[in-house]
Amino acid sequence: MRVLGIDPGLRNLGWGVIDMTGSRLGHVANGTCRPDGDSLPARLASLFEQLRAVLAEYAPDAAAVEQTFVNKDGAATLKLGQARGVALLVPAQAGLEVGEYAPNTVKKTVVGVGHADKQQIAHMVRLQLPGVTLHSADAADALAIAICHAHHRPVIRPAAALRA
Amino acid sequence: MRVLGIDPGLRNLGWGVIDMTGSRLGHVANGTCRPDGDSLPARLASLFEQLRAVLAEYAPDAAAVEQTFVNKDGAATLKLGQARGVALLVPAQAGLEVGEYAPNTVKKTVVGVGHADKQQIAHMVRLQLPGVTLHSADAADALAIAICHAHHRPVIRPAAALRA
Repeated sequence: MRVLGIDPGLRNLGWGVIDMTGSRLGHVANGTCRPDGDSLPARLASLFEQLRAVLAEYAPDAAAVEQTFVNKDGAATLKLGQARGVALLVPAQAGLEVGEYAPNTVKKTVVGVGHADKQQIAHMVRLQLPGVTLHSADAADALAIAICHAHHRPVIRPAAALRA
Repeated sequence: MRVLGIDPGLRNLGWGVIDMTGSRLGHVANGTCRPDGDSLPARLASLFEQLRAVLAEYAPDAAAVEQTFVNKDGAATLKLGQARGVALLVPAQAGLEVGEYAPNTVKKTVVGVGHADKQQIAHMVRLQLPGVTLHSADAADALAIAICHAHHRPVIRPAAALRA
């Protein structure tokens, strides 16, 4: 199973792709989308195209996006929401299931504690994906989200499989 | 010039299309997208497809989207932001310029005062677009946004036209 993790953002959107074979994880690719354009609609369209290109190149089977921390800065929340809308849309439009995980769940899964900093996350991502070169802190977060999804993905139960 | 106005929302996204010939406005169509799907990513993908179908059918030359009122409810702001991201994306992706207007600007332009209620907006939209049948309150708002854009669209100045 190939999983795409996305750390949404309007300036820097991190993405990371991993393969899961049984319980073994392997790194495929990671990167950062930096949308350009001189207006918000243009930047969202740029983000959309860049993320679509990632999906076309790596053909993941599932996607996972970090849940956004809602803070008191409404304008910042709105901006992030707009980028997150695009981050959720692109894999859904490609027919993928999209998992959503709270930052604490991602940290607990990857680092073991809910309050890890970015350096700890990058360190544990490197340990779990040997040989990986991290494109950015946002890309490291995206790989952590993909790892989290690989560990949490729903198990297909026999009864459900029989019904399908 | 044909203008598409959009009142973004995740449950009900209002849209309205008008034609502007000189200073005369004419109604073309209005409606409401009600995205379906049992997850947020699926609903965003449904919204995207419905809005793309509107653009494909009516081929507007420009689009305008209402600016979102940022309130103290961060979760609501985030939800609306995600829908708004899709509302801005679709016309931008089609190569259209997308105007953004504050609710007060829309109300001042269409009703004459900044604090008009939904009934007043619907009334003035009906006056300015004779014969229109309003699909919903959100569709009426969307037509008001399109009317606002028609009145505010940037004038091409001779110097700018010469440079182009």
